[in-house]
Amino acid sequence: MAGKQVVIIGGGFGGLTVARSLRHADVTLIDRTNHHVFQPLLYQVATTALSPGDIAWPLRTLFRSHRNVCIMMDDVVAVDRAARVVGLRNSSPIAFDILIVAPGSRHAYFGHDEWESSAPGLKTMTDAVQLREKMLLAFEYAERRRTSTGVQTQLIFVIVGGGPTGVELAGALAELGRKAMGPDFPHLRLDDLSIILVEAGPRVLPGFDVKLSVKALRALQRMGVIVKLNSPVSAVHADGVRIGQEWIASTNVIWAAGNRASSFLSSLSVPQDSFGRIKVRPDLTIPDDPWIFVIGDAAHCIGHGEKPLPGVAPVAMQQGRYVADIIDRDVVPDQRPLFAYADRGMLATIGRAQAVAQFGSIHASGLFAWLLWCVVHIFFLIGFRNRFRVMSEWVWYYLTFKPGARLIFERPSTARNIPSTDHGHE
Amino acid sequence: MAGKQVVIIGGGFGGLTVARSLRHADVTLIDRTNHHVFQPLLYQVATTALSPGDIAWPLRTLFRSHRNVCIMMDDVVAVDRAARVVGLRNSSPIAFDILIVAPGSRHAYFGHDEWESSAPGLKTMTDAVQLREKMLLAFEYAERRRTSTGVQTQLIFVIVGGGPTGVELAGALAELGRKAMGPDFPHLRLDDLSIILVEAGPRVLPGFDVKLSVKALRALQRMGVIVKLNSPVSAVHADGVRIGQEWIASTNVIWAAGNRASSFLSSLSVPQDSFGRIKVRPDLTIPDDPWIFVIGDAAHCIGHGEKPLPGVAPVAMQQGRYVADIIDRDVVPDQRPLFAYADRGMLATIGRAQAVAQFGSIHASGLFAWLLWCVVHIFFLIGFRNRFRVMSEWVWYYLTFKPGARLIFERPSTARNIPSTDHGHE
Repeated sequence: MAGKQVVIIGGGFGGLTVARSLRHADVTLIDRTNHHVFQPLLYQVATTALSPGDIAWPLRTLFRSHRNVCIMMDDVVAVDRAARVVGLRNSSPIAFDILIVAPGSRHAYFGHDEWESSAPGLKTMTDAVQLREKMLLAFEYAERRRTSTGVQTQLIFVIVGGGPTGVELAGALAELGRKAMGPDFPHLRLDDLSIILVEAGPRVLPGFDVKLSVKALRALQRMGVIVKLNSPVSAVHADGVRIGQEWIASTNVIWAAGNRASSFLSSLSVPQDSFGRIKVRPDLTIPDDPWIFVIGDAAHCIGHGEKPLPGVAPVAMQQGRYVADIIDRDVVPDQRPLFAYADRGMLATIGRAQAVAQFGSIHASGLFAWLLWCVVHIFFLIGFRNRFRVMSEWVWYYLTFKPGARLIFERPSTARNIPSTDHGHE
Repeated sequence: MAGKQVVIIGGGFGGLTVARSLRHADVTLIDRTNHHVFQPLLYQVATTALSPGDIAWPLRTLFRSHRNVCIMMDDVVAVDRAARVVGLRNSSPIAFDILIVAPGSRHAYFGHDEWESSAPGLKTMTDAVQLREKMLLAFEYAERRRTSTGVQTQLIFVIVGGGPTGVELAGALAELGRKAMGPDFPHLRLDDLSIILVEAGPRVLPGFDVKLSVKALRALQRMGVIVKLNSPVSAVHADGVRIGQEWIASTNVIWAAGNRASSFLSSLSVPQDSFGRIKVRPDLTIPDDPWIFVIGDAAHCIGHGEKPLPGVAPVAMQQGRYVADIIDRDVVPDQRPLFAYADRGMLATIGRAQAVAQFGSIHASGLFAWLLWCVVHIFFLIGFRNRFRVMSEWVWYYLTFKPGARLIFERPSTARNIPSTDHGHE
């Protein structure tokens, strides 16, 4: 494929895998930030167990040795299929022969985008750092206002969405609040701290076997998390959230429900599902163009079953390898194998020594599943250095419960004068 | 002193030392952030060698075992000496019997505060992170605009002030730019990168012996830093800086000159020097109140010589111990020893294997001084964990020149909806 211009949109798991696998083609990798984030551990940055630098890597450094890969930090506004160019916010359009669309997703607010300001999600490093700061400030505020009645709502955390992100976040917050923050805020009544996990469906971790959902539910409850099932959110405001008829006053609502694909996908003008995902063909291309691929969270890809594949790292990475192979070998459309996802199982952690694992018919929970989770995540962290750092961070944290990255940055007025990257959140 | 209310303003080297040394008095430590920063290494965060978490520690965690110390994250607005209370921005005033004023300082813009927006300083973690981001964005921008003429000004870094901060920053930037960034920005002409250190006086590191100043100058020049001596800045704009008659076009002007004490000090209504520092008595108290102490950068304290003591960590820490001893032993004013600063020498690093050291009549430079610098700074980092992390970071960085913390955070519009700590920069 030498000579052909390959453009990849997005430096997440999918885009990164494609770019790393293509050693010959001329590749341009576009991302709105300058780094790749290990998303599965974002919640640990948000809950101060890890530092941003522990789970993020500058894309340029990752591709230092890949002379055929050019990194561009910019924002994609649209794809012009007729002109075969990708339109960018800060640079002139980039021409492509082959396009891989892997922009990832934002959380879905089900038609209520105005909720996002009161209930931010957890998809990017910025989300994680802001969430961390908001949560730390809530504790500081509660400590200051300890006498007044304002404390309650300040220390009520509501997490919307009982999927892996919501469960992991709820568990980590419970641990952080009771074990780590407790000793540091002597005047705080930890009874005032309540962590509420809200799930619209009948169980947490709906993707897992029902027995594991129950185990996870029990574990969360043992940790003091209040879990509300069958509780769809009907309204979100700055001062609280409405669930059916119940109003929960809280200034700390975190959104971990659903996915919504990037808005620029519509410029491809091909069918999308209700979440904005592109309905790809079995070779992950768009209906009428064999050299435009869509992978990862942005792809509506039917696996073995009827349900589209979940928006998780393994899917994106396997899709990335599949696409890279087609491009490398220049396989013409009608000779391409169908993409088949090999499900290596699922893991979700709830807290220290608490996790659930599911590999086909094999189920595990508790300490064993948790150790497995640690090993797997450490293994998949790119680069020994971070692996090593994260491991030492975890050992330290789980032994001492003294979190490392507990910094609240000031917000000086001069911030306005720093040139903003101005990257919207599609 | 049990029973007496001791209030400390500022969690820097001075305030921290007092709070740690007082084991009996009831202490309230007020800081506008929730963490103590190891300021001497801020420039390494700004130049991506270290992560914020490596050189900052949550105050609450530092004082976990000090049951007599209460931490307050808030902004001091004024001190009411008549009512013996400290006025805070977000909380009700705090009463004190004994007050230690250690708010540190900001950079001095010599009556041109409007320059700060175009030429930010490097005093807080926020400064460092914003500077890091601004610099990284400049490189990304230059890479994008590599063909146009815009590159030049984007890659011109002007550092104002030839003191330790300015010298260390210039050296670190030169190394980062040529050694670390070079390989990651293949389309960048590194000749376009120029780092200019501007000093109003006749030599860099004026606090050091003249021979060492010359050695530092040579070292900087060997690293490709353009050093302009006897060059007072006459104007700073968003697009450049004027030095005498010369105009240097640059969007990256960094201020590392002079100190200006916090503005609330004027509420003490006692004599201040031209930098706003309080002219303290030999026992570090204000002229007419033996139980209000001013230490660190905020104090105009005459040492052995005529010149006031420099605003460096050792001075603040020794003053902190001195004050804590007086308070602990409840020494009445006329029986107090005079504060005497024991000068343990000075160190400044320029780059890898490049530093200058001065201990009384003993001078050193080059590799030896640099190793000394590393040892001293590692030693003074609080807490083994960070010491260990920083050491491993340095080993990694100086071996591979792959910086760790190279993250540019997005600036989503939702940022506005996060409750701002709203801490002004006095």
